[in-house]
Amino acid sequence: MKYSIGVDMGGTNTDIGLVTENGNIVQRRNIPTNAYTELEPYVHDMMHEIEAMVADQTAIDGMAAQLDGIGIGAPNGNFYTGCVDNAPNLTIKGNLNFEKEIHKYRDLPVVLSNDANAAAYGEYIYGGARGMKHFIMFTLGTGVGSGIVIDGRLVHGSTGAAGELGHAILIQHGRKCSCGREGCLETYTSARGIVQTYCELKDIPVTPEITSKKIGELAHQGDPVALKTWETVGDQLGLAMANAVTFSAPEAIFLMGGPAQVGEPLLRPLRAAFDKYLLNIFSGTCQIRMSELHTNEVAILGASALIKMPRN
Amino acid sequence: MKYSIGVDMGGTNTDIGLVTENGNIVQRRNIPTNAYTELEPYVHDMMHEIEAMVADQTAIDGMAAQLDGIGIGAPNGNFYTGCVDNAPNLTIKGNLNFEKEIHKYRDLPVVLSNDANAAAYGEYIYGGARGMKHFIMFTLGTGVGSGIVIDGRLVHGSTGAAGELGHAILIQHGRKCSCGREGCLETYTSARGIVQTYCELKDIPVTPEITSKKIGELAHQGDPVALKTWETVGDQLGLAMANAVTFSAPEAIFLMGGPAQVGEPLLRPLRAAFDKYLLNIFSGTCQIRMSELHTNEVAILGASALIKMPRN
Repeated sequence: MKYSIGVDMGGTNTDIGLVTENGNIVQRRNIPTNAYTELEPYVHDMMHEIEAMVADQTAIDGMAAQLDGIGIGAPNGNFYTGCVDNAPNLTIKGNLNFEKEIHKYRDLPVVLSNDANAAAYGEYIYGGARGMKHFIMFTLGTGVGSGIVIDGRLVHGSTGAAGELGHAILIQHGRKCSCGREGCLETYTSARGIVQTYCELKDIPVTPEITSKKIGELAHQGDPVALKTWETVGDQLGLAMANAVTFSAPEAIFLMGGPAQVGEPLLRPLRAAFDKYLLNIFSGTCQIRMSELHTNEVAILGASALIKMPRN
Repeated sequence: MKYSIGVDMGGTNTDIGLVTENGNIVQRRNIPTNAYTELEPYVHDMMHEIEAMVADQTAIDGMAAQLDGIGIGAPNGNFYTGCVDNAPNLTIKGNLNFEKEIHKYRDLPVVLSNDANAAAYGEYIYGGARGMKHFIMFTLGTGVGSGIVIDGRLVHGSTGAAGELGHAILIQHGRKCSCGREGCLETYTSARGIVQTYCELKDIPVTPEITSKKIGELAHQGDPVALKTWETVGDQLGLAMANAVTFSAPEAIFLMGGPAQVGEPLLRPLRAAFDKYLLNIFSGTCQIRMSELHTNEVAILGASALIKMPRN
């Protein structure tokens, strides 16, 4: 039987999954990313877990489990070089050549990209974007990420770092962003941005107890300030999405991540804003849809899907 | 000898050129677009001019002039269908199947796209973008157009209408646009938008005597309001370009069209704004450059270049 490996490298944990051709995660393991300061032992232990999963699966299947490649979603993962370049939130520092290091153990295709790109490609191979050639994925979370697929390929651009729509400037001279600039989409539609909007509307200070999840619950209870918060976020995200359509005319824009789980309180104003801001020639050509992948599976599935992308 | 045909279909005139492999326009002819209300006679007369150029060139070369295809830059020109779909400023109405009509005369590849896309591809085949895989062209004129090249291909998206960055909304609730929405880039950086900014700064009404060309001349004479106008335009265009980089991480952004001919009064603030608004991970990875094609040749060269694009 044939499997792919999907690796979701986070700052704290690294989740590793053995994935079937159909997108079922049949085994999962993890190692603590932040216990490592060097790439060699990290990859050594990662490969150890991978070999253990292959051995276990071979026993389960009663026939050799074969790997077609290792896909890695990582902060600053570079598709072109197979490296992770100086990711600020990793304890393993420097320019990390995963491809070279993994090839010491297994001569397999190794494909890296960042987590939002991986999520987009997971949607393409296993989720709601199957059969589409042009779509965009927005991921809402601590930050706002995006992955862009054009003609069935992830857009990596000249540097490998394309698809950073969370840092397109939505409002000139707007909110201060962690990137050092002002008005990035992320400052309005990330979990933190949503909390800030809620607190501004209520005229109260931001405290750790106020979370986007809590604001979602309040909206479902009919709280007017919470509802207004999601309307504001929907309007801002709808504008960003309409602008993205002018670039690549996608068939659909997908949405995923914690804050997006609120559902209708966000989706209703989002769709209304998208229609309002969309250039008329694109009317009716692009749907807004929720990701069809499970939140706790998307990172591994997305990473494993990277193996399926044409690389020429 | 081998040649391509480039057709620049405007609302008033249609310019047709015979182009060498190296991008020299060796013959030009034109027919009055607005004298036609039906596609059949229009294509008949266009093909008549093309055959006349081929005959003339055969005589000049002393050997048969062969055509490898006909590229057409037209308003609403659709790459996927080979049609011009309901272009509002054409006297020939409806869904115009150029490919089918031309094939009545010659069995040649026929490739259509809009004029900004054609300009971008002309830059790629014959101009400053030779050898690049990722770049964007902004065309400033009556409107603001754009053409996006990713991995050596024009981005047409799911509908064929991708690359409309002139209608990305730069300023929410900003200036009224001809598209019916508000705040599009075009309302600030088109010839008309530039005139409006100048008149607002001077607090005078917009009159036909005030043109972007005139404001350019005034800037070169040191007129402070004209200089301030170009600074404002440069800032707005720089923001739009920095946002475009978050999408496709191009190696360069090219600029062409009448208002861009002003040169340094625009380019200096444009480059400063681009640096200011660019996400730090893209610093130093993308140049802003002027188109290297001549203004009066770019439309024909761009159209003829479309023939060279892989279509699979």
